[in-house]
Amino acid sequence: MTTWTRRHIISLADFVPDEYNTVLQTAASFREVLSRRVKKVPTLQGIVVATLFFEPSTRTRNSFELAAKRLSADTLSFTPGTSALTKGETILDTALTYLAMGTNIMVIRHREAGVPLAIANEMDRLESQVSVLNAGDGQHEHPSQALLDLFTICSLLDPDLPRLELLKDKKIAIVGDILHSRVARSNIWSLTASGAEVHLAGPPTLLPKLFASWGMAHQASPVPPTSPEEENSPLPITHYPLPITQPKLFLHWDIEPALQNADFVMTLRLQKERMTQHLLPSLREYHQRYGITRDRLKLCQSDVKVLHPGPVNRGVEISSDLMDDPQFSLISQQVTSGVAVRMALLYLIGGGKA
Amino acid sequence: MTTWTRRHIISLADFVPDEYNTVLQTAASFREVLSRRVKKVPTLQGIVVATLFFEPSTRTRNSFELAAKRLSADTLSFTPGTSALTKGETILDTALTYLAMGTNIMVIRHREAGVPLAIANEMDRLESQVSVLNAGDGQHEHPSQALLDLFTICSLLDPDLPRLELLKDKKIAIVGDILHSRVARSNIWSLTASGAEVHLAGPPTLLPKLFASWGMAHQASPVPPTSPEEENSPLPITHYPLPITQPKLFLHWDIEPALQNADFVMTLRLQKERMTQHLLPSLREYHQRYGITRDRLKLCQSDVKVLHPGPVNRGVEISSDLMDDPQFSLISQQVTSGVAVRMALLYLIGGGKA
Amino acid sequence: MTTWTRRHIISLADFVPDEYNTVLQTAASFREVLSRRVKKVPTLQGIVVATLFFEPSTRTRNSFELAAKRLSADTLSFTPGTSALTKGETILDTALTYLAMGTNIMVIRHREAGVPLAIANEMDRLESQVSVLNAGDGQHEHPSQALLDLFTICSLLDPDLPRLELLKDKKIAIVGDILHSRVARSNIWSLTASGAEVHLAGPPTLLPKLFASWGMAHQASPVPPTSPEEENSPLPITHYPLPITQPKLFLHWDIEPALQNADFVMTLRLQKERMTQHLLPSLREYHQRYGITRDRLKLCQSDVKVLHPGPVNRGVEISSDLMDDPQFSLISQQVTSGVAVRMALLYLIGGGKA
Repeated sequence: MTTWTRRHIISLADFVPDEYNTVLQTAASFREVLSRRVKKVPTLQGIVVATLFFEPSTRTRNSFELAAKRLSADTLSFTPGTSALTKGETILDTALTYLAMGTNIMVIRHREAGVPLAIANEMDRLESQVSVLNAGDGQHEHPSQALLDLFTICSLLDPDLPRLELLKDKKIAIVGDILHSRVARSNIWSLTASGAEVHLAGPPTLLPKLFASWGMAHQASPVPPTSPEEENSPLPITHYPLPITQPKLFLHWDIEPALQNADFVMTLRLQKERMTQHLLPSLREYHQRYGITRDRLKLCQSDVKVLHPGPVNRGVEISSDLMDDPQFSLISQQVTSGVAVRMALLYLIGGGKA
Repeated sequence: MTTWTRRHIISLADFVPDEYNTVLQTAASFREVLSRRVKKVPTLQGIVVATLFFEPSTRTRNSFELAAKRLSADTLSFTPGTSALTKGETILDTALTYLAMGTNIMVIRHREAGVPLAIANEMDRLESQVSVLNAGDGQHEHPSQALLDLFTICSLLDPDLPRLELLKDKKIAIVGDILHSRVARSNIWSLTASGAEVHLAGPPTLLPKLFASWGMAHQASPVPPTSPEEENSPLPITHYPLPITQPKLFLHWDIEPALQNADFVMTLRLQKERMTQHLLPSLREYHQRYGITRDRLKLCQSDVKVLHPGPVNRGVEISSDLMDDPQFSLISQQVTSGVAVRMALLYLIGGGKA
Repeated sequence: MTTWTRRHIISLADFVPDEYNTVLQTAASFREVLSRRVKKVPTLQGIVVATLFFEPSTRTRNSFELAAKRLSADTLSFTPGTSALTKGETILDTALTYLAMGTNIMVIRHREAGVPLAIANEMDRLESQVSVLNAGDGQHEHPSQALLDLFTICSLLDPDLPRLELLKDKKIAIVGDILHSRVARSNIWSLTASGAEVHLAGPPTLLPKLFASWGMAHQASPVPPTSPEEENSPLPITHYPLPITQPKLFLHWDIEPALQNADFVMTLRLQKERMTQHLLPSLREYHQRYGITRDRLKLCQSDVKVLHPGPVNRGVEISSDLMDDPQFSLISQQVTSGVAVRMALLYLIGGGKA
């Protein structure tokens, strides 16, 4: 196991295999703690973890808070609405206030891509020891979600020693609104790093333009990153690149070739506003073309498992009965993994702070 | 004292005397803890208590949270508004998420009757060890409120050994909007179980239709539970029965016979929307006919005490000066009892979980 | 060091030097705790600190909560909106509920002056042992802010032994909306008590009428406190007096004489609603006449420092680059001092409670 040197966790784009494996193995040891009678360890006693959720999400915030409490850290919670932001304070000023109060780790969610990185840069510029953990920024990344997905899958393959190599040559389909999904973006980095075959499938309007320009090409290949249409993309590829030269990344407009012999199927949450943006015809038609059903799963490996980052629109991304079927669904395990993985992340970036 | 076997606390309809007495005596021992210098016990260390308040109530939530913290449990708090519910997740999915995070006890409030039971059934179906505590569901029940009322009264009668039998043959009046009150409904179960004489008084429009059909009858007697008008009641008696065959349950349209020689008077919170629903003429007229005043209390026993679940509409259910008079008002003791009783309930249902 | 006897902290109007020095020295010792590896002390274990913020403020509430947690207290948090207040409960009833739950210290913020005092009086009348700490009431006072300002300044002058006497004969300018500022009001008490020269500067419309009636007088002198125009002031001087007979309190309509040779400049937050109330021409003009800039600071001592209670309207009260310049700005230290000073206050008023 490598020694952990990363202070912030903003993106998985430059994660190396040793880092993935350290997270997986640390999470496995915390999962063991969570099975004990007393589920707390004093590791982060005196450490302050502040959840700055400019975009509210009770379940993700609670997952981080529970992880922090299990490590005996103190938590502070900031959500807008009852906040100084309505009084004109900038986001950076809010972060500086929590820094000055004595925060050691900031867990940040914001609807704009780049906010956690900007705050991390400011923390470094000030030579503070604060760590920043991106809990979802716009359509950029959501690294803790991708890491808990990875931990969920690898733990299924080897509960005792979850590790990146287990995914080598597995076929993993990611289905849905790839374009707007920070979860997909982070997962593409981790899964391609593992050596898995990653198959993206979704309506052309919900695939990154860069990919769409390939037409029906199933095999990814490099394209000029400065293509003019990319400039108008909500998240220009030039700022947040994807591993498009990765030989094992595939693209599909239909779901069937993506599911064919798949070992794992990751579904993505569909935002209902995509319809009012005319990117989608209807939820019903979406379900007909891209929804995961028992019938469609017959295309996959017989022991295929389905993931979803939650919350699920039942009957849209996935049929309702399938979601509750423990033979196929890993949704509940993902939530459980979330606490262990977030304990691991807080521990790794916060361990040396007290 | 009996051994506690009940996993969930949803309703008092099937509580047996041993269970009431176990709650009362456990609460008495925690009241002793609360009088110590350090008011914490490590009993529920590592246990996660999640308050899922789909219908917000800061004071009740804080009471449960303080009870949980006194027992060294970790708390998670879910309130809608900043939540995934606005994103289309079902209530059951929310509960499943908190189950998967590692919650041991769910304290649930919802404006619809039956939600806590539905969640408890799902937790059992999944063979989870999770306990569900109903913190108020629609117009159904609010068992912890009735138990803290019971503890408050019994502690007054015998501080050292509060027990159900102390209420035998006491006369207790419940005054106000019986129809819509989950507090009344739970109290009717506990008080009739104690052997007390229970007298309900309120405007005919605010009494359960089942009772109203008795006209001015003061003595309860069984009526066909399938009467057609019951079908339209907001909470059909067929689903949530009341102990109408209980020989000591009485009904009044006027307040005076209910108060005559009463030992305790329980007032209920009046929702102001009852007026816009034309169930009430005006708050002023309500106070004139059913408000508790010093004059009216002269009808009662000289040492009569008044209870109210809070928050009080001063000058409506009860005159403002009476509410603050410690000679008559138990309102403050009820809040104090709330913490001890909720510690007892969390302890009893959560004791074996860690 | 004197023995602390004050139960409530509502106002600094009657604070004596011994009390200021006790707060400063206690805060210094807690600052030392905050520099340790484990930043917690068990001092207030079992004590319940309730933050009752009828006027929401996440950052101030978090500062108090963190202070309470560092002292091992349990915290309860009340904010309106999801609260019984919307159901008609009075403020005093809310406080009585938290008293009955077992709260030991109430930290209260309200947009009306006098609310914390009214609650403190009620707590005393009931012979409870509860302490009340005013966390900002209307345009009256914000004592913990003034005490953390004092601690920040005195710690700069002597980190080891911050004490009131260090400010003797220092020149301190308070610039901005003095009239509506509870921060200014509390600071005027503490700074005049220290023997500093205090210079107030702001637009005539934003100075207390009592002061404005002096016209351009630079030297404060007593005026009849019953002047009729005072009666219409939002906070009549007869209720909340200022130390107007203090020989070292000066008044200016222009900023330059206030800054001349100043050692410290305290800027105040400008509420944008002052413009719609026609008390201000525009933010731009305000900045031109009263904003703190590098140029203006040249009037001051060369080692002048600038304070602001936050959140700052960048480019209005203070130029944006100056705010971030550690050579001049103490804003970040103020936030850090806040936790230590609030630990000191909770400790001093709560120490004997458990």
